[in-house]
Amino acid sequence: MTETDSHDIRDGETRIDAPMREDAAVQFIGVIRTPYTSRDMCPRQGKLDGPDCRLELRPEWEPGLEGITKFDHLDVLYWLHQSRRDLVTQNPRSDGRITGTFALRSPVRPNPIGLSLVRLIRREGNVLIVKGLDCLDGTPLIDIKPERCAYTPQAPHKDADDV
Amino acid sequence: MTETDSHDIRDGETRIDAPMREDAAVQFIGVIRTPYTSRDMCPRQGKLDGPDCRLELRPEWEPGLEGITKFDHLDVLYWLHQSRRDLVTQNPRSDGRITGTFALRSPVRPNPIGLSLVRLIRREGNVLIVKGLDCLDGTPLIDIKPERCAYTPQAPHKDADDV
Repeated sequence: MTETDSHDIRDGETRIDAPMREDAAVQFIGVIRTPYTSRDMCPRQGKLDGPDCRLELRPEWEPGLEGITKFDHLDVLYWLHQSRRDLVTQNPRSDGRITGTFALRSPVRPNPIGLSLVRLIRREGNVLIVKGLDCLDGTPLIDIKPERCAYTPQAPHKDADDV
Repeated sequence: MTETDSHDIRDGETRIDAPMREDAAVQFIGVIRTPYTSRDMCPRQGKLDGPDCRLELRPEWEPGLEGITKFDHLDVLYWLHQSRRDLVTQNPRSDGRITGTFALRSPVRPNPIGLSLVRLIRREGNVLIVKGLDCLDGTPLIDIKPERCAYTPQAPHKDADDV
């Protein structure tokens, strides 16, 4: 393994031994600023009343925030750039209870995409101030979506069976 | 534009004119089978009592499903491979009301990652039968996670301030 990762293999964990496929490219659209500068500081799950964090978009994507302040909650997707990607089973408590990667929300997964529900506090130009993140400071941002429960599709009003 | 896309630019929409960044690679871990073989057939949002769909994992990732049947609901992430990626504002109803891409759940976004909450019906080896998807048949699968509300982090029991 030449990957940068701090997660060593524990008893009972299984890794994929094939070279990683590269099927599509992700572009980072900005960076996330949190108070968590080391993994030990990161909570296991963010809290909607936790500390303020910042989603800083690259300037070219700023117009993409038009209209976002009408939503209270957002889904934020980010790239867990320090996670290994080859574990198919994991032993998260080091207690021998083996669990499949897809039955965990661990950052260790084939595509290390983190997903958090956040509360939108305010917008400042190309920056959103939010609460609810648990990721490291400097984590690359890949997407922001209105939270699904609050969201009503905007396209063709007419096809009622669509909604 | 040489991208394959069927979404032409509508009045008031804005596109990014820079070459796309390629910051990280996504690997497809399987394919999604739905009854929707053209975009016109796709509902705007999936329904948890909709038709059965299949998440077919590549065989090497099958052990990653260990333990997943204890969850009723899952977050499914997939790659919207037919979507254009360069629109920063959109005019979804073609009515002149311009909305930023991040205030929409449109498939057109810088990283065309779809996210759906699904209901797990059953597992058959490397296949999960689920309800709630709205994507095209043949959509590449990139991740499956237990739905966040039902999920309790498994790692170190002891640090109570973590939960």
